[in-house]
Amino acid sequence: MDNGGFCDDNYQSGSSDDELVDISEVTVDFSEDVPPLDRDYSAGKTRKNGIGIPKLMDLLDDTVPGIGTYEDFNTIDWVREKSKDRDRHREIANKSKQSTVALLFSISDAFSGWLLMLLIGLMSGALAGGIDIAAHWMTDLKEGVCLNGFWFNHEHCCWASNETTFQERDKCPQWKSWAELMVGVSEGPGLYVVNYFMYVCWALLFAFLAVILVRAFAPYACGSGIPEIKTILSGFIIRGYLGKWTLIIKTITLVLAVSSGLSLGKEGPLVHVACCCANILCHFFTKYRRNEAKKREVLSAASAVGVSVAFGAPIGGVLFSLEEVSYYFPLKTLWRSFFAALVAAFTLRSINPFGNSRLVLFYVEFHTPWHLLELIPFVLLGIFGGLWGAFFIRANIAWCRLRKNTSLGHYPVLEVVVVTLLTALLAFPIEYTKMSSSELISELFNDCGLLDSSKLCGYTSNSGSTSGSVNATAANGLGARLAGPGLYTAMWQLALALVLKMVFTVVTFGMKVPSGLFIPSMAVGAIAGRLLGVCMEQLAIRHHERDIFRGWCSPGADCITPGLYAMVGAAACLGGVTRMTVSLVVIMFELTGGLEYIVPLMAAAMTSKWVADALGRESIYEAHIRLNGYPFLEAKEEFRHKTLATDVMRPRRGDPPVSVLTESGMTVEEVERLIADTTYSGFPVVISQQSPRLVGFVLRRDLVISLENARRHQEGVVSMSPILFTECDPPMSPSAPPAVKLRSILDLSPFTVTVHTAMEIVVDIFRKLGLRQCLVIQNGRLLGIITKKDILKHMAQMANRDPDSILFN
Amino acid sequence: MDNGGFCDDNYQSGSSDDELVDISEVTVDFSEDVPPLDRDYSAGKTRKNGIGIPKLMDLLDDTVPGIGTYEDFNTIDWVREKSKDRDRHREIANKSKQSTVALLFSISDAFSGWLLMLLIGLMSGALAGGIDIAAHWMTDLKEGVCLNGFWFNHEHCCWASNETTFQERDKCPQWKSWAELMVGVSEGPGLYVVNYFMYVCWALLFAFLAVILVRAFAPYACGSGIPEIKTILSGFIIRGYLGKWTLIIKTITLVLAVSSGLSLGKEGPLVHVACCCANILCHFFTKYRRNEAKKREVLSAASAVGVSVAFGAPIGGVLFSLEEVSYYFPLKTLWRSFFAALVAAFTLRSINPFGNSRLVLFYVEFHTPWHLLELIPFVLLGIFGGLWGAFFIRANIAWCRLRKNTSLGHYPVLEVVVVTLLTALLAFPIEYTKMSSSELISELFNDCGLLDSSKLCGYTSNSGSTSGSVNATAANGLGARLAGPGLYTAMWQLALALVLKMVFTVVTFGMKVPSGLFIPSMAVGAIAGRLLGVCMEQLAIRHHERDIFRGWCSPGADCITPGLYAMVGAAACLGGVTRMTVSLVVIMFELTGGLEYIVPLMAAAMTSKWVADALGRESIYEAHIRLNGYPFLEAKEEFRHKTLATDVMRPRRGDPPVSVLTESGMTVEEVERLIADTTYSGFPVVISQQSPRLVGFVLRRDLVISLENARRHQEGVVSMSPILFTECDPPMSPSAPPAVKLRSILDLSPFTVTVHTAMEIVVDIFRKLGLRQCLVIQNGRLLGIITKKDILKHMAQMANRDPDSILFN
Repeated sequence: MDNGGFCDDNYQSGSSDDELVDISEVTVDFSEDVPPLDRDYSAGKTRKNGIGIPKLMDLLDDTVPGIGTYEDFNTIDWVREKSKDRDRHREIANKSKQSTVALLFSISDAFSGWLLMLLIGLMSGALAGGIDIAAHWMTDLKEGVCLNGFWFNHEHCCWASNETTFQERDKCPQWKSWAELMVGVSEGPGLYVVNYFMYVCWALLFAFLAVILVRAFAPYACGSGIPEIKTILSGFIIRGYLGKWTLIIKTITLVLAVSSGLSLGKEGPLVHVACCCANILCHFFTKYRRNEAKKREVLSAASAVGVSVAFGAPIGGVLFSLEEVSYYFPLKTLWRSFFAALVAAFTLRSINPFGNSRLVLFYVEFHTPWHLLELIPFVLLGIFGGLWGAFFIRANIAWCRLRKNTSLGHYPVLEVVVVTLLTALLAFPIEYTKMSSSELISELFNDCGLLDSSKLCGYTSNSGSTSGSVNATAANGLGARLAGPGLYTAMWQLALALVLKMVFTVVTFGMKVPSGLFIPSMAVGAIAGRLLGVCMEQLAIRHHERDIFRGWCSPGADCITPGLYAMVGAAACLGGVTRMTVSLVVIMFELTGGLEYIVPLMAAAMTSKWVADALGRESIYEAHIRLNGYPFLEAKEEFRHKTLATDVMRPRRGDPPVSVLTESGMTVEEVERLIADTTYSGFPVVISQQSPRLVGFVLRRDLVISLENARRHQEGVVSMSPILFTECDPPMSPSAPPAVKLRSILDLSPFTVTVHTAMEIVVDIFRKLGLRQCLVIQNGRLLGIITKKDILKHMAQMANRDPDSILFN
Repeated sequence: MDNGGFCDDNYQSGSSDDELVDISEVTVDFSEDVPPLDRDYSAGKTRKNGIGIPKLMDLLDDTVPGIGTYEDFNTIDWVREKSKDRDRHREIANKSKQSTVALLFSISDAFSGWLLMLLIGLMSGALAGGIDIAAHWMTDLKEGVCLNGFWFNHEHCCWASNETTFQERDKCPQWKSWAELMVGVSEGPGLYVVNYFMYVCWALLFAFLAVILVRAFAPYACGSGIPEIKTILSGFIIRGYLGKWTLIIKTITLVLAVSSGLSLGKEGPLVHVACCCANILCHFFTKYRRNEAKKREVLSAASAVGVSVAFGAPIGGVLFSLEEVSYYFPLKTLWRSFFAALVAAFTLRSINPFGNSRLVLFYVEFHTPWHLLELIPFVLLGIFGGLWGAFFIRANIAWCRLRKNTSLGHYPVLEVVVVTLLTALLAFPIEYTKMSSSELISELFNDCGLLDSSKLCGYTSNSGSTSGSVNATAANGLGARLAGPGLYTAMWQLALALVLKMVFTVVTFGMKVPSGLFIPSMAVGAIAGRLLGVCMEQLAIRHHERDIFRGWCSPGADCITPGLYAMVGAAACLGGVTRMTVSLVVIMFELTGGLEYIVPLMAAAMTSKWVADALGRESIYEAHIRLNGYPFLEAKEEFRHKTLATDVMRPRRGDPPVSVLTESGMTVEEVERLIADTTYSGFPVVISQQSPRLVGFVLRRDLVISLENARRHQEGVVSMSPILFTECDPPMSPSAPPAVKLRSILDLSPFTVTVHTAMEIVVDIFRKLGLRQCLVIQNGRLLGIITKKDILKHMAQMANRDPDSILFN
């Protein structure tokens, strides 16, 4: 059971053994109130105890419970779900004309979506606030403790201190480092060693707790969650992935993982947390609980909420959901997402976790406009971001494959502990890796102010007149900022930090702890950007008389903002890894609030995407989806091969004809044998075997349930009873056993294409309508069937990938 | 020919007589290089001279020119267009592997989309800048002229003047009002009368010129253009609507119409102008010229550009295009739209038409935060906005119907002149109607500063101590702002202006001049909002000791910002009229740049939409689309009726069976007779009349062209020649005339549904896949056909509207 995690395991390997059963028992499954049928139909067993419980389902026209629901690890039928919702809506609208109570019910039903959004916003905002506060406190706990009360973090502890600069304020007497507290030393190498030791110990403790909790209570809580949520939103069912336990454990372990100092962020997991909230809250609204398509609309909104609280960027969050995560995103959902994202952002702000009443995570305000020539370094940053994105994806996927295929994957706890140990050991000596990644980004984005005591602002003008440069006279106040020794040290440390961050981010993403990669990617980009920015700045100051700089750099004035370079670099790297475009620029725009800086951001984001796309089409999320073999039909990339439906459909040429039912003339026994002999998830119904003209389609699950139900509750049904899908009964002798009439479970409008239909059109239909399967006909005769799985396999084949990695329907 | 305009005429009445031919000859049609076939097939004539010109079409696998193109006033087939593009792409990709030149061509092809976006952005931004400058100058021309040079507007003329307040600066000696210039008086009633007269004269001149130009050169240039662009984007063809003449005339007349002081804005028309630019620029790129689907992607981006330059809100523009205008909006287009919108916004900013280097039209900066209790007046404003929206739509549609059905519609020039005369006569005496609407909105949004001399800021603290109120002592500086006599006058004038604006906006929108309604709607809302804001402010000041105000209103401090109320009111009214949601809030957000005020805007926008939707589901654009009978399949509203495909398909029950072709056995003569006898735009091809099993579908246009071509170019084709759609030739006697083989024009993968398919699903398929028609089968036999027109008629019928208003395919 060492491989019991979820993040990087191929579902294929886990789906047929005990591990996943174990998982679904651990995670509390809110959908358990549908009768549990045995998932493994191919074995031909159906669990008897689950069927016939009459208490729960009251779908509009279903008589047999269980019909119209889905198995775990199956794909939903969007068309059917949406029809179901329209039926429901129609029913309510009709009733509402009859009585006042029904009218009120109809109004409350119409507003329930908004209420749900409000609740999701409030709950996610509150949770995000809690996570922020807890993570802040625990991160500081690695360094020391507050004497006024251990529950204060460093900043709150020194709140009352009235020093002017931040550095001096940080050294308030109430805050004691571990060395001061335990050994009593307040300076010297002893202090350093004890603090180092305590830092590593706390980091190890947090990481160990995180991985143990994940493994013990909610294996689904690991990783970023975005690949799985993308898959779920595209119509896949993963029971328990958005359940109560996952929510609780992910929230706790996210705090622990972030505090441990590992190279990971909380943004991706916050999306998962928001989706868990949404899924749980859906259970209080019949409209959403009963309908998988409606539930997915809510989950799309929840993804927007997640990003909204992560960055304080509601518009960016909505666009992120639209661009990156969602599959079916009608305009109504857009508006509701926006509402929920705003509510969440304001809830978070009223909790005020950063203590500055700012909504956004990294608030920046720049004063110097940028010059057109600066687009060159910005594009360079874009190229760097694209290269880093492509490299990161390959390296991370290679590492994850290694983990999966070698014995490394059997020791997830050990892996986390070792990585944490290495991270902590190497991070502590360097100032910029010791601080948390979001603090680092914040500092790198910041422009140097007068009171800034950071080493990054170690210009000669601040550190006294140490240089005899030509600008020394002008170097007072914020004037010419010539690099001083502080800045040089900072540069070296940043360069080291860059390498460390890059290596650790590759290794960390995919471990069995909650881990997002927005923050680490941004940190890499911000460091690179700041380095380039400072170089540019020094270049401009030292060569301000050159033609190229003369236009915009008068001596003694700042003309280059290194913080802006850091921001552009962060955007470029994030874009390279996630391939976000509009949402990326909008999120960054919401951080600054000025249209002024959109152009640099856009230039970097565009370059980064082009460079990264040239080296590999997939984003990190898509790469992980493929690694895990999820049945996800990518909507972005067009299918460009010139194959036809006939090349993809089953049965292939030479195979026996497709297994069909006839609309009359088959007996219960024959049908049961067909079910037992095949593993197909549905059967076409034709007029007769000789004239295979299509009548409809019946799902295996519905058929199994109906037959069981008939055997149990219908008088006189025996193995020889005929099964009828026809509208009117054929004449039968009175002595014959009573017929089982199944027209009600027959889908009379299955989707069909002809054998000559180009696969690009078939793929388009599947994507846009959200089909599960499609029947192939020629001149009115049924020839075969194409399922989503067939399409995914075909696409994998066309891209020269292993088609057998996709194993779910 | 008095009814020769376009804006409000039902196409139905115009499509079969000479007027539209007249129009299409007036507007230069860039698509004329496809062979012009006679539009009116039902008459059975085909214009001979247009066919067989072999110069132009080199579509990948078409041999006969004209196949694969569309008639005017027809609907495109999205599936076919997208397939065509994919074929093209495949061809280029294959070739690029063979030679370096082809590789370079493939790269340039990939980047041509970006280049096109850049050009659209530059051109639209430049045009918008020109329009702004010209309109500003001509608006001022109504009042007077600059002595330094007649080409200066009032502001530029007084640029050098060094007075401190704006009011004093406006009275610089270089700027002469018409009375001063013509009569020589500089005060007294004479001045007023002469200025009044000149104001009215100029207004009449501008309006007259505008309507005459529109009627003479480009009837398509009238109106806002957004309903038509929505229809075009959904796949309809209106030749010349986005042509060169339309662009030129719309640009000129827009300036004239705005300057005339009519109650209209330039935002909607700017979208039309941007789309014209896009359409014209498309002609330089084969990829986009040849493909109607790709062209529509570009037009979607151009709509975003239009709004971006109108408000300086690129993100809002993109969301407007996504939410309000576009039909097919893939993510790639989202990113490109954003790029184009940014380029346009920055082009506009570098032209700097407002002279303040601000990007946005109404820049606002508020200093006082809002209080939670203020949500009550904001929601009230939302209710007002919703009521106004619903009222406006009904009143405007009723007025347009009146114009269409009575003799009023025969005198469009007179109508414009009369409305302008009334507007000018009533507007001049009131300060707030005399100024242009955008100036008015700007003033209403503004918070009163220290130097503000506007009457709206006529508080007692500014106008000396005239009142003996309790606050008189605290009333210095910006403290307690008790209303003075100036403010009371302003309130009365604003109330009058509100009524006038409401009436004139209803009458103006739909006249034969370019007219947008963003600005008039916003003006109505801003006036209402400012009125409420001032009331609230005075209430709070006079009752600041009450419990309800005590929480946030300490005496002597401003606690209420009337400018914010104006902004919220503007958003509410705009939302009520256009039913925009996210894009509305984002546009307003981009005006202020602070997340702080999103919540009030959202509260008002939500209330407004709910109230307006409760009174009528349609936005003004949809109402005009329906009024004009465009074949537009609304994507927002779900089809909720429980009808089946069999209820909608033609032929109806009892009618003769559907007209079909057989795959073999028909002669040229028989087919030509069928074409002459019917008006259908396409025919299903079946195996035989006895066994109507579907083989494919052939379009009427393709069939006509192919037959003409065969008759002309193929040896020995006579009326008795057989027509074959089969793959292999049946055996024929050597003496028989040669067969016409038409399998190449046969669509072998027509879309089919069964008779039992619910119409909601059929509607969904039509919307999502962009179909023109769909065949209906039962058990493999072809029973009928459903076209987009049938669906629109059915939907109209279900909504108890006149189904015959939709007359195009």
